[in-house]
Amino acid sequence: MPPSLPSPSSVTRAAITLPILARAASTTSAGTAVTPNKPPPSKDHHVHTYSPEAFPLGYTVSSTHAGIKKKAGALDLGILVSTSDTPCSAAACMTRNVFKAAPVTVTSELLRNSNGRAKGFIINSGCANAVTGKKGLEDAWSMSNTTTSQLPPSGAQSDKEGTLVMSTGVIGQHLPISSILDKIPELIRTLDDSPKSWLDLSKAFMTTDTFPKLRAKTFKIGDRLIRMAGIDKGAGMIAPNMGPPQPPHATLLGVIATDAAIKPEDLQNALNYAVDRSFNNITVDGDMSTNDTILCLANGAAGSAEHGGRETEEKMKELTEKANPEEFGIFKEQLREFAEELAQLVVRDGEGATKFVTIRVKGAPTYEIANAVAKSVANSSLFKTAMYGEDANWGRILCAVGYTPLSPNPISPTSVSVSFLPPAASSNTTPLRLLTNGEPEPNIDEARASEILKEEDLEIEIDLGDGNEEAKVWTCDFSHEYVTINGSAEEEEGWMYD
Amino acid sequence: MPPSLPSPSSVTRAAITLPILARAASTTSAGTAVTPNKPPPSKDHHVHTYSPEAFPLGYTVSSTHAGIKKKAGALDLGILVSTSDTPCSAAACMTRNVFKAAPVTVTSELLRNSNGRAKGFIINSGCANAVTGKKGLEDAWSMSNTTTSQLPPSGAQSDKEGTLVMSTGVIGQHLPISSILDKIPELIRTLDDSPKSWLDLSKAFMTTDTFPKLRAKTFKIGDRLIRMAGIDKGAGMIAPNMGPPQPPHATLLGVIATDAAIKPEDLQNALNYAVDRSFNNITVDGDMSTNDTILCLANGAAGSAEHGGRETEEKMKELTEKANPEEFGIFKEQLREFAEELAQLVVRDGEGATKFVTIRVKGAPTYEIANAVAKSVANSSLFKTAMYGEDANWGRILCAVGYTPLSPNPISPTSVSVSFLPPAASSNTTPLRLLTNGEPEPNIDEARASEILKEEDLEIEIDLGDGNEEAKVWTCDFSHEYVTINGSAEEEEGWMYD
Repeated sequence: MPPSLPSPSSVTRAAITLPILARAASTTSAGTAVTPNKPPPSKDHHVHTYSPEAFPLGYTVSSTHAGIKKKAGALDLGILVSTSDTPCSAAACMTRNVFKAAPVTVTSELLRNSNGRAKGFIINSGCANAVTGKKGLEDAWSMSNTTTSQLPPSGAQSDKEGTLVMSTGVIGQHLPISSILDKIPELIRTLDDSPKSWLDLSKAFMTTDTFPKLRAKTFKIGDRLIRMAGIDKGAGMIAPNMGPPQPPHATLLGVIATDAAIKPEDLQNALNYAVDRSFNNITVDGDMSTNDTILCLANGAAGSAEHGGRETEEKMKELTEKANPEEFGIFKEQLREFAEELAQLVVRDGEGATKFVTIRVKGAPTYEIANAVAKSVANSSLFKTAMYGEDANWGRILCAVGYTPLSPNPISPTSVSVSFLPPAASSNTTPLRLLTNGEPEPNIDEARASEILKEEDLEIEIDLGDGNEEAKVWTCDFSHEYVTINGSAEEEEGWMYD
Repeated sequence: MPPSLPSPSSVTRAAITLPILARAASTTSAGTAVTPNKPPPSKDHHVHTYSPEAFPLGYTVSSTHAGIKKKAGALDLGILVSTSDTPCSAAACMTRNVFKAAPVTVTSELLRNSNGRAKGFIINSGCANAVTGKKGLEDAWSMSNTTTSQLPPSGAQSDKEGTLVMSTGVIGQHLPISSILDKIPELIRTLDDSPKSWLDLSKAFMTTDTFPKLRAKTFKIGDRLIRMAGIDKGAGMIAPNMGPPQPPHATLLGVIATDAAIKPEDLQNALNYAVDRSFNNITVDGDMSTNDTILCLANGAAGSAEHGGRETEEKMKELTEKANPEEFGIFKEQLREFAEELAQLVVRDGEGATKFVTIRVKGAPTYEIANAVAKSVANSSLFKTAMYGEDANWGRILCAVGYTPLSPNPISPTSVSVSFLPPAASSNTTPLRLLTNGEPEPNIDEARASEILKEEDLEIEIDLGDGNEEAKVWTCDFSHEYVTINGSAEEEEGWMYD
C-alpha cells in the first residue's frame, strides 16, 4: 500500500527550542523565520502522512504531555505495544559511548533477560536520564516495569518480556518520574493504530528536531505483504557508532516496527547490518551521544497477501537466516533501505543544516577504508563550512582525505580523483571532475561548479583508485545557525540535550 | 635580556583576508570591527616588540612583497640566514597528512642530504604550493636553490647545505615563481638583524592570521646566555600532527632559531619532544593541514655570558644529549616552553576565536590516554559552541570524554570528575566542581559558573581517577565568525588556504 503523498502537517515543536530558533532567524542571514508549532517551510515536505493500511499490523501506539517539556501540551511521552498473538522479537543497536544513559542500560538488560523479546517500548523526550547515577537507573526501571504491569495480559507473551525504554533530552537531570508514572494509565487507555497516533508518537520523540520523522512502507516476501513503520529523531550530537547490546553502549533514537516474523537473533543480525550502513554512516557534528538507540520490533502479525489487509488469521512462520536465506535476504535489504531513509531524515534536520551532502568513496581496497575516508571528509569543519558557503573547495576535501586516521595509511596521493555530482533529479546530471589522479583539472568550469553547489542535495565522489570497495556517508553543512543553536546557554532547560 | 613590554604595533594584513573579516564584522553579532592593517583591538596585546639584544646572534632576516598576496606592499616572501661561523644545525617536524605539499617534500630532502644542516630558509605566504604536481616540486626546488646559490659563501658551511622552504596559502595553485625568483637578490641585499626586520618576517608568514606571531627569549645554560626567537602562523586548518621528516608528511608554519650549539640529531630529538607537547596539542578546527612545518635552527653563535651580547669570539661546543645530559635537558625544556608559547598564539588567533580554553586531563593511566581524551573534548563542536555561548555544559564534555577513540577503552564512568578553573590571574581562583566520580554535583553555583565562563581564558580539568598521568591540549571556541570566515567562497583568491 503506497503512502499518500506528503502533505503539510501541523507539528508541535517543543517549547524549549523555540527561543533558539527564533534567535537564529533574527541573527543569521541564513536563518529562516520559524512559525511556532510548524516545521520551517524548507523542511515541511519531509513530513509525510500515510493511510491506515500503511502501518504494520498488530501494534498500537499513544502519546501524551507529561510535563517533561515545559510547553503546555507538547508531546513528551509515548508508548508502542505489540498486540499480535505471536511473540514480538526485539533487537537493538546502542551507543558505544562510555557514558551510557540509564535507559540504555535497562533496555540492554531487558533484552538479555527475555532472549530478545519485548511487549513494546516507552519513550520520553525532554530529559535524557543520562549521568543520573543510581536514581536514574531506578527511574528507568520504574518507567519500564510500571508500563509492563499495567498492560493487559497477552497469550503470546511470557512474564520475561518487558517494555523497553528510551529517553532523550537534557543530560544530568532527573526525570520527573512521578508525573511520568501518573500518565501511564492514560497512555494505555488511549492506545490505537490510527495514522494520527503514529504521527503523534513521532512528535513525542522530538527535541531540537524541526519536524517529526515518521516513515512507513510495504514490500513482499514471497506472497506475503510485509509492513514496516519507522520513527526517529535527532538533529545535533549526531555521529552514531552503535553496536548490539552486550556490552551495552547509543542521541539518535529510532524504532522500526514490522509485522514480519523473524527470530530474535536473526532480527539482531539484520539490524546490525542495516545500522552499520545507515545510522552509523550519518554525521551532523561528529559528537557521539550517550543515548543513541535504534530498536527493531518484529511481531509476526503479517497476514498473507491474499488477505490483503487487516486479516491476520494465517500467520507467518518466523523467518530465519538459516532456513530461509533468500527470504531473509529480502528482509535484510528492505530493512537496510528503510533504515537509510530514516537516517537521512536526521541529516536533513541537522542543526542549522541547509545542505544534504552524500560523500561517496569508491575505488578503495576495503569497505572499512572507504568508510573511514568518507567519515573524515564528512566531519571536517572546513569542508562543512565550504558547503555552507557553496564553495568548490576541493583542497579541503583532499586535506581531510589525507588525514584520515588509518594505520598503515594505504592512500596514494597520485591516484585520488574527486568529482562533484548534482542530484539525480536535476536537469543536468553531468558530474564535474575537479581532480584526476592527484592533479587538479586544468580548466574547471566555475559556472558549473557553482550551479551544482547551489543545489540542496549534492554528492562528492572520491575515487581512491586502489580497489573496488565503496562506502557512502551522509552529512550536512555547518552554518551560522548551528552556532546559534548550540552557542546559546539554553537557560530555560539548563545543561544540554543529548 | 628581557623583552620590552608588548606595545601596539602597525601590522600589514594580507589583502586577501580583509573582505572576509570585514564581512564578519558586519554579519555576526560576535564580530568586532577590524581596521585594515591593524590587528583587531582584542588581539593587539599579543603583538610583542623586542630590543635588538633579545634576538639570537648570527642570524639575519629580510622580507618583501613578491605579488603573491594581491594587496600592494603586503609582505609575502621572506628569508632567514645563519651568518654564524659555526655550522647551523636544522631539524623539522612536518605534517603526517598523506597529501604533503611540495615545500614539505623539498625541505625533508634537503635535511636528509645535509645530515641536518642548513643555511637558513625561505618562506612565502599566499600560495601553499600544495597539490601542484611536478611543477610544484620544481618551483619549490627553484626557490631553495636560487637562494642558496646567491648567498655569499660561508666558511662554516659545506656545499651540501641548502635553504629550507616553507609555503602557506591557497591549495591547488601554482606559485608565481618568476616574481619570487626575481625578488631573491633584493631579499639577500636587505638582510639585517634589526627588530623591525624580525617583525616584518613574521608578517610575511601571515595568511588568515589577524596578528603577526613573534616571540624572543633568553636563558642560561651554565654561564652561557642563549637566545631564542620564534615565529609562527596559523588560524584555521589547525590540528597538527607532526613527526620528524622521513617519511616526510604539515598549515601551521613555525620556526625557532637559537644561537645555542646543538648537534643535529639532538636538535631533532629536542624538537620532537617540544612539538609533541605544544604544536601537536593545539586545535582550532580539527583539520590537519598539508603544509604544517616547524623548523628549528641552532647556529652555535652564542657567546659566553661574560661577553654579554654581540661578541661571539668564545664559541660554545655543540651540546649533545649523551655528553651533556644536564645542559641538554635545560635546552629541551626551554624549547618546549617556548614552543608552547608560540603554539598558544595560534589558538589565540584561531579563526573567529573569542575564548582560549585549556583542557587538562589528569588521573590517567598513560599520557597517551590523557592526550586522546583531551583532544576528543577539544575537537567537539558541541563543546566549542558551548564555550562560545558561555554555557556550563558539562554534559557535552562528558559525552566527548566517553567517545574518545580508545581501544580497549579504560575509562570508568563512575570515576570521572570535572571542574572549571578560572585563569590564574583572576581575583577568585577557586575551581568550580561540576561532576564528582560520575555523579553531578547537587548544587552547582550557577553564578560562579557564569563568572568563570565570562573569562577569555579558562581551564577545564577532567580527572579520570585512574592513574597519575596528565596531558594538556589548547583549543578555542566555535563562533559565528568561524562560519563567516570559512563559509565564504573567497572568490578573490579562489580555492582555499591550507
